[in-house]
Amino acid sequence: MSTVLDELAAVLAERKQADPDSSYVASLHKKGLNKILEKVGEECTETILAAKDAEDQDDVKKQALVYETADLWFHSMVMLSHLDLHPDDILSELQRRFNLSGLEEKSSRNK
Amino acid sequence: MSTVLDELAAVLAERKQADPDSSYVASLHKKGLNKILEKVGEECTETILAAKDAEDQDDVKKQALVYETADLWFHSMVMLSHLDLHPDDILSELQRRFNLSGLEEKSSRNK
Amino acid sequence: MSTVLDELAAVLAERKQADPDSSYVASLHKKGLNKILEKVGEECTETILAAKDAEDQDDVKKQALVYETADLWFHSMVMLSHLDLHPDDILSELQRRFNLSGLEEKSSRNK
Amino acid sequence: MSTVLDELAAVLAERKQADPDSSYVASLHKKGLNKILEKVGEECTETILAAKDAEDQDDVKKQALVYETADLWFHSMVMLSHLDLHPDDILSELQRRFNLSGLEEKSSRNK
Repeated sequence: MSTVLDELAAVLAERKQADPDSSYVASLHKKGLNKILEKVGEECTETILAAKDAEDQDDVKKQALVYETADLWFHSMVMLSHLDLHPDDILSELQRRFNLSGLEEKSSRNK
Repeated sequence: MSTVLDELAAVLAERKQADPDSSYVASLHKKGLNKILEKVGEECTETILAAKDAEDQDDVKKQALVYETADLWFHSMVMLSHLDLHPDDILSELQRRFNLSGLEEKSSRNK
Repeated sequence: MSTVLDELAAVLAERKQADPDSSYVASLHKKGLNKILEKVGEECTETILAAKDAEDQDDVKKQALVYETADLWFHSMVMLSHLDLHPDDILSELQRRFNLSGLEEKSSRNK
Repeated sequence: MSTVLDELAAVLAERKQADPDSSYVASLHKKGLNKILEKVGEECTETILAAKDAEDQDDVKKQALVYETADLWFHSMVMLSHLDLHPDDILSELQRRFNLSGLEEKSSRNK
């Protein structure tokens, strides 16, 4: 088994091949890179607005920020998938940059 | 041991308490939420531009996109840390939304 | 009579008071500042994407960029209107910054 | 004489040809479209943050919003200039869309 991001990447890879009429992800791929990047930009703005609103540490607003950040990460993963990249590419870059071990992750990938 | 995002979250929590003169992350927290969100927006724009440039599947440009997306995820993690949230909150939301098992991740968190 | 931006500001002020069911501008004001700022961010991303596409100087793509930039300026004017500001405030700031005369504009405003 | 945006467009056209070492505008053109679009995105985020902060109608914060919006319009005009477009193209599009007379402006352009 793998991590949430790995599993989500697998779901996204599968849906990239799905029927655009029945899959939101497939419909994004069909509309093309610009549409996907519009969504990334849109979710980024919504994340920024939700973070401003959550500055008072209100729990409902913090949950809204979690939701918008999930949207941002999700759509950036659709972008990676559209260009045949994988979240592991991003995690490896972060690991390299911060000299992280990522031990568990590596071992889980060997399974 | 844990995943890259968990390890990075731990690094970020530590640096949040560090000397702003010697730590970039601490300096962002000291400048406040607006500065952190400006960086999130900035990295989002750079990600979008890098994705447009990588549309031709050139490897150097794809590597540049990986770098910018890592910057975007990194700064969104600083934002979460600033508001006392954790990447696990985002992963849990994605897991819930896509009905992912996240088994390995859960078991690694129990260690 | 006045300039295009002045006239547009007058139209926006009028529609701010209109029925949200029949006026797009009124519906934005009713939904509130976040919704207006989401639109500003959205149009900014679309402007950036259109500019990348227009880099080859193709006329159709340049016209698309004109359209998106008009959307961006329009929604930033709705934002100004929502906070009881006027495009003249922006023009005065630019005039001050670049030491512009703005003579014709001034005389037209005295009419 | 002409309007502030016309005058500013003339200043920008002149500085496009200037020495990049002594002119900010020339340095942006030299760095290229991506750099200009990064600035557009950056100023858009700063405008959005300033608008959120100005929601309480505080005068100092409203002035900060005027300043950021001026930055956004300014950098979008550098973008237009880089692609050989003119703010009149945007104003004409807005005029067409909202059926504005733009009479004074037209007459001033005939002088």
